[in-house]
Amino acid sequence: MRYIGKEEIEKMAIGAALLGTGGGGDPFIGKLMALQAIEKYGPVKLLSADELDDEALVVPSAMMGAPTVMVEKVPSGNESIAAFNALEEYLGRKITATMPIEAGGVNSLLPFALAARVGLPVVDADGMGRAFPELQMVTYYLDGINASPMVLADEKDNSIVLNAVDGVWTEKIARAATMTMGGSLMNAIYPMSGKQARESSIIGSLSFEEKLGDIIMTSKQPIDDLVEATNGYILFEGKIRDVERATDGGFVRGKAVFEGMNQNKSSECTLEFQNENLICLVDGQPKCLTPDLITVLDAETGMPITTEGLKFGMRVVILGMPCDPKWRTDKGIETVGPGYFGYDFEYQTIEALNQ
Amino acid sequence: MRYIGKEEIEKMAIGAALLGTGGGGDPFIGKLMALQAIEKYGPVKLLSADELDDEALVVPSAMMGAPTVMVEKVPSGNESIAAFNALEEYLGRKITATMPIEAGGVNSLLPFALAARVGLPVVDADGMGRAFPELQMVTYYLDGINASPMVLADEKDNSIVLNAVDGVWTEKIARAATMTMGGSLMNAIYPMSGKQARESSIIGSLSFEEKLGDIIMTSKQPIDDLVEATNGYILFEGKIRDVERATDGGFVRGKAVFEGMNQNKSSECTLEFQNENLICLVDGQPKCLTPDLITVLDAETGMPITTEGLKFGMRVVILGMPCDPKWRTDKGIETVGPGYFGYDFEYQTIEALNQ
Repeated sequence: MRYIGKEEIEKMAIGAALLGTGGGGDPFIGKLMALQAIEKYGPVKLLSADELDDEALVVPSAMMGAPTVMVEKVPSGNESIAAFNALEEYLGRKITATMPIEAGGVNSLLPFALAARVGLPVVDADGMGRAFPELQMVTYYLDGINASPMVLADEKDNSIVLNAVDGVWTEKIARAATMTMGGSLMNAIYPMSGKQARESSIIGSLSFEEKLGDIIMTSKQPIDDLVEATNGYILFEGKIRDVERATDGGFVRGKAVFEGMNQNKSSECTLEFQNENLICLVDGQPKCLTPDLITVLDAETGMPITTEGLKFGMRVVILGMPCDPKWRTDKGIETVGPGYFGYDFEYQTIEALNQ
Repeated sequence: MRYIGKEEIEKMAIGAALLGTGGGGDPFIGKLMALQAIEKYGPVKLLSADELDDEALVVPSAMMGAPTVMVEKVPSGNESIAAFNALEEYLGRKITATMPIEAGGVNSLLPFALAARVGLPVVDADGMGRAFPELQMVTYYLDGINASPMVLADEKDNSIVLNAVDGVWTEKIARAATMTMGGSLMNAIYPMSGKQARESSIIGSLSFEEKLGDIIMTSKQPIDDLVEATNGYILFEGKIRDVERATDGGFVRGKAVFEGMNQNKSSECTLEFQNENLICLVDGQPKCLTPDLITVLDAETGMPITTEGLKFGMRVVILGMPCDPKWRTDKGIETVGPGYFGYDFEYQTIEALNQ
C-alpha cells in the first residue's frame, strides 16, 4: 500500500496516454478531476492486488461513451458516486475498493477522482493493460466474470441497473442507453470479489503507467528507455504524410500514412485505427497487430500522440509493445484480435513479426 | 371482486381493440396468452379499485416496443414474471396486484396472462382509458407518479432496472434499450401504492372493455349501442379511398381518406394516425382531436379496424368518443394533445366540435 498524490497522477496521466494506444480518451480531463479531488480530499491509497481480501467487493469505475462528448460535458464527479451508491444498494453490500477498467486513457485516472471523494482505495490493476472500446474487451470477460449487475448514471440523476447475460449483451444495451442519455456517462461495472480481481486482472498497471510517465518526463533518451521498459519494438520512424478520420456512432475510424526517415528511409508505414491504433503495416507487411499495443510518439520528446493529435508533417516514432499474455489465448484473440475489428489478418505476436 | 374466465377475455379483447383507436397492438396475441394461462391456471381475480388497501403495491405490466415485432417473437410469459421478480427484489417488497397500463390493444390483456401464472389479482383500471404510444402518456405521469423504478426484461434473460427522473426520461432510455434488446420486451412500470392506483387511474376500464365487446358480439344494432355506451359521436360514414402508411422506428405514421356515404354523401374525411388514430377531419374541419378517441368500425358488424387493417373500398363508420376528463387538463393536453404529435390544431373537445 502506498499513497498517490498529485505528482504520481501527473506521471500516470502520461503513461496512460501511452497505453491508450492513440485512443482511450485524452487523460487530460481524468487527470484534472483526479488532481482536484486529491487537492481537496487528500492522497488516495493504492493497494497492490495481493493486499485484497478474498471476500472484498471490488468495482471498477469508468466513463462510458464518446470521450469527445465528455470534453464538452465534464462530469461533476457526482455521477460515479451515484453509480456506486446504486450498485451498493442493489447488492446490499459496501464496495471495498475501486480500480480502472482500462489502463489506457481517461479511464485510468477517473477512479482516483471517485476514490478521493468517497475514501475508497484504488487497486493497482486493470482489465485491459491498455485501452479498448467495448465493455466485453476485458480479461474479466475472458474469465467468465459477468459485467452485470452494472450501473450507469448521468448528470441528470437518471440511473440504470443492468443485468445482462454476459459482457456482450451488457455492451449492446449499455451503449444504446448511453447514446440516449447524452453520449457520456459514468458506470460501476464488473463487480467482483478480491480473489477474482487478483486472479483475473492485469496486475500493476497503474505503477507501470507511472513508470512510463516518469521515463518520458525525466529520461534523456526516453524512446530507448520506453523500448526497454515495455519490451517494445520501434516499428517505424517517419513523418506523417496523410491522415483520414471518420466519426461514426462515437467511434473514430481511420488511418494514417507515414513516410520513412533514418533507418526507415524509402519505406512507408500505414497505421489503422478504430479509436485505438490496431494495425501497423510497413511496406504492406504487418509489424504489429491488435491486441499488441501500438503508440505513436513524438520523435524528440517521446510524448504519446493520440489519433486525434496526428498532424501532417509531425516527426514520430511508432512504438509497438507486446500485450499481456491473457490476450493471446483463443478467446482473447476472438474478442480483440484483428478479425473482430474487421481486418483480414491472422494475429501473430509482435515478437514473431519483428524477429 | 369477481373472476375473469375465458368468455370475459373474449369480450374484453374486442373492447380493447375499440379503445385501441386503431393502434395499441392487435389484442389477438394478448388474448391468446391470457386464454392459455387461464386454461392452465384457472380464472383471475378482478379487483375493483376501491378494494385496494392504501398500502398495496400495484404494478402495471406491459409489452414495450413494436407490436409488429411481438407477432414474430411471441413472449413466452417468462419475461413478465422475470420483470416482476426483479422489481420485487429491487424494492424488497411483494407486489400485491397488477393492472394494464393502457386500456387499448394488446396491453390490456397481457396482465391476465401474468396474473394467472403468478396468482395475482388484476385491478379493473388503467392509466390511459385508451392506447397511446409513449410511457409518459399516462394519468400517473400527470399526477407526478414516477415511472421508475421500472424493469425491462427480454426472452434472453437480460433485464434492466431503470431509475429515471421522470416518465419522459424513462421513455427515452427504455425505448433505446428496447430497440437494442430486440424490439419487443415486457416491463414492470409505475410501481404505486393502492391509494395512488385508486386516485390516479382511470377506473373500470376492463369492465368497460367487456361491455363494449358484449355489445359488438350480441347487439342487433351495435353501432347505435356503442354510441350510447361511449357517449360517442358518429363522425363519418364512408368508404376507404386511400391509405398511406410509413413505419419509422417502431411507429406507424400515415393517413387514410374516406369518401362519404349516406348522411355524409359528397363529403370527404381524412384520418391522421401515428400508431393510434389522432385527428379526424371532415371536409377539412376537425371533428375529433387527440386525446379524444377515434375508432374506425366495420359499418355492418361494428367490429373495430386497426390502422393496419384499413383496406381500399371498406365500408366503415368512424366513431368519436370523449376521453377521460383527466386528459383535458393543461398538462394532459401538453402531454397527448394535437401539438405534442406535431399537428397544428388547438385541442377542442369532441363535444364542442360536434354541437
